[in-house]
Amino acid sequence: MSADTARPHRRHNPLNGGWVQVSPQRMGRPWQGEVSPPDPLPPAYDPACYLCPGNTRIGGAVNPEYTGVHVFDNDFPALEDTPGSPPGDDPLLRAEPSPGVCRVICFSPDHARSLPLLTHDQLRSVVDTWAAQSAELGARFANVQVFENKGAMMGCSNPHPHGQVWASAHVPHEVATEDARQRDWLARHGSALLTDLAEREAASERVVEINDDWLAIVPFWAAWPFEVLLLPRFGVARLPELADAQRASLAQILKALTTRYDNLFQTSFPYSFGWHQAPFGMPDTRHWQLHAHFYPPLLRSASVRKFMVGYEMLGEPQRDLTPERAAQMLRSVSGAVHYRPQHE
Amino acid sequence: MSADTARPHRRHNPLNGGWVQVSPQRMGRPWQGEVSPPDPLPPAYDPACYLCPGNTRIGGAVNPEYTGVHVFDNDFPALEDTPGSPPGDDPLLRAEPSPGVCRVICFSPDHARSLPLLTHDQLRSVVDTWAAQSAELGARFANVQVFENKGAMMGCSNPHPHGQVWASAHVPHEVATEDARQRDWLARHGSALLTDLAEREAASERVVEINDDWLAIVPFWAAWPFEVLLLPRFGVARLPELADAQRASLAQILKALTTRYDNLFQTSFPYSFGWHQAPFGMPDTRHWQLHAHFYPPLLRSASVRKFMVGYEMLGEPQRDLTPERAAQMLRSVSGAVHYRPQHE
Ligand SMILES: O=P(O)(O)O[C@H]1O[C@H](CO)[C@@H](O)[C@H](O)[C@H]1O
Ligand SMILES: O=P(O)(O)O[C@H]1O[C@H](CO)[C@@H](O)[C@H](O)[C@H]1O
Repeated sequence: MSADTARPHRRHNPLNGGWVQVSPQRMGRPWQGEVSPPDPLPPAYDPACYLCPGNTRIGGAVNPEYTGVHVFDNDFPALEDTPGSPPGDDPLLRAEPSPGVCRVICFSPDHARSLPLLTHDQLRSVVDTWAAQSAELGARFANVQVFENKGAMMGCSNPHPHGQVWASAHVPHEVATEDARQRDWLARHGSALLTDLAEREAASERVVEINDDWLAIVPFWAAWPFEVLLLPRFGVARLPELADAQRASLAQILKALTTRYDNLFQTSFPYSFGWHQAPFGMPDTRHWQLHAHFYPPLLRSASVRKFMVGYEMLGEPQRDLTPERAAQMLRSVSGAVHYRPQHE
Repeated sequence: MSADTARPHRRHNPLNGGWVQVSPQRMGRPWQGEVSPPDPLPPAYDPACYLCPGNTRIGGAVNPEYTGVHVFDNDFPALEDTPGSPPGDDPLLRAEPSPGVCRVICFSPDHARSLPLLTHDQLRSVVDTWAAQSAELGARFANVQVFENKGAMMGCSNPHPHGQVWASAHVPHEVATEDARQRDWLARHGSALLTDLAEREAASERVVEINDDWLAIVPFWAAWPFEVLLLPRFGVARLPELADAQRASLAQILKALTTRYDNLFQTSFPYSFGWHQAPFGMPDTRHWQLHAHFYPPLLRSASVRKFMVGYEMLGEPQRDLTPERAAQMLRSVSGAVHYRPQHE
């Protein structure tokens, strides 16, 4: 892709079958819409936070004086072990029970330490927790969805750095779609889709970060302005399978990537991020590659975001700047030094 | 569905193949996240608005002193008649040209008159404009996407009541998906999916508004809290095919539905709304029914919204209140009298 990518075109997402309309010529349009205020710098401890150590949660439970990663059951879970059993055999009005569990993962006792501000060892503990939760819940549920909503703009109801894990007996729609498409790719091409992609993209203009084990790219079909796809450079289907050195290199690339994100607009960069791993109990996973999606909403500054509305909801996503330009912008800021001095 | 719908379950969307996780037990969870301020009451004329009659737009063009509906070419279109021609035959990195046009439709010269505040005749002109634009652009393009983004929360960059029409040579992903699924339904059941649905739902607990020609329901599989599906009660594939009386009854139900929306939280209710019609040039449209989707973000008040983030992006949409409860709430407010006194 070269000069022609400055003109409108659409790109295909082989992982979920979607398309995105790319309209680079639109970067100059006017803006009179919503301007969201940037999140304020939080204190290291907030007595009003229901995730800080020792504080009382809304449900009445008291958090322990935890010192590392802390996992607990969500007080208001969307999924429960004993779901309803609605009638399900009507093709027009079809429903099914959806047993599952929801947990919260506090990354650190420090209210102000989001992922890029954790030490390597602390980030490594987060990776180990994701893997351990996946192993434990994967023994009972088909899907283990590990994710983080970061920032008020992304509906995060509490600024204390935390992620979630929602495990379910069913495989949710987006994961089922990726499963089917990866399976189809293997059948057609004789190799795994995301293995092919990691090989093909390792030296491309869409690379943001790379180390021996991992590759972070703005995918060719990115819908969100600074969307990133984090890929292993080795075969692996699920988080618990990661070897010791692969977890260490994962902590390294996560810190570098999220540091670049924060540095881009000098703000604690909002996003939804999460892992896709092969359904548990699926015997043959040759078509699957573990991977993470980062979906950040910001477009032009710490306060001007992209809205996925109207045409996006009814037709298909539309983006202004090209994925190649987004990758270049992320490469142009530091992945080593965070813009903001830390507490202490 | 009865008592069991108070417990978590998931529901299937036969129109696009998706699923939604329904978690009614979650309505009591705490909220410390973003609270968006309600939109202020706008003046009837705003000298700084680039859509008001006689004003100069950012691109330099001057709006005529229009008195009814006013259509013009978007100054910053996402789609253009002469797109790029990127290489497209690579299965990993696949792209294609996407010729099209983007227009803006001002519903009224009055800066403050959103759809529910228009007279019946004014609303009827809007319906006629949607049909005329579809006919004109449908002669050149396969898809004509008519939509409205309303409210800053939905990325609307200008509060002057207006919609858009984006026409494209390709059929966008969401429309292509609905096309395939409606085709499949006809093949399996011998009748059109949305005809079957309108018959089945005409007296259901999910009805919000109904007249002789049209039915507005919170669909069984609604993802957004107060999502509405507007269906014809007669066979019709595209907007230009609507007969005179059907346009009048459409204006009537649109006014009633949007009045209920505004009355629900006593605010100018934000949403993205748009029509899905059969691709133009498609000879056999027996499987297709014209319909409109309303996707409003508000959940609990004029300022507390639902965020489709994290689990929604990576797994599948999740909702708290049931569609049946949402329909009941919309029925409990007036569809005839708007809460806010109007200018003049
Ligand atoms: O065209 P507008 O109002 O400038 O822009 C709005 O609608 C477009 C079409 O849904 C979206 O792509 C934009 O993200 C949104 O801000
Ligand atoms: O679980 P939280 O942080 O209360 O809620 C947030 O994440 C959930 C999972 O992505 C979403 O369903 C909610 O809309 C969002 O506000």
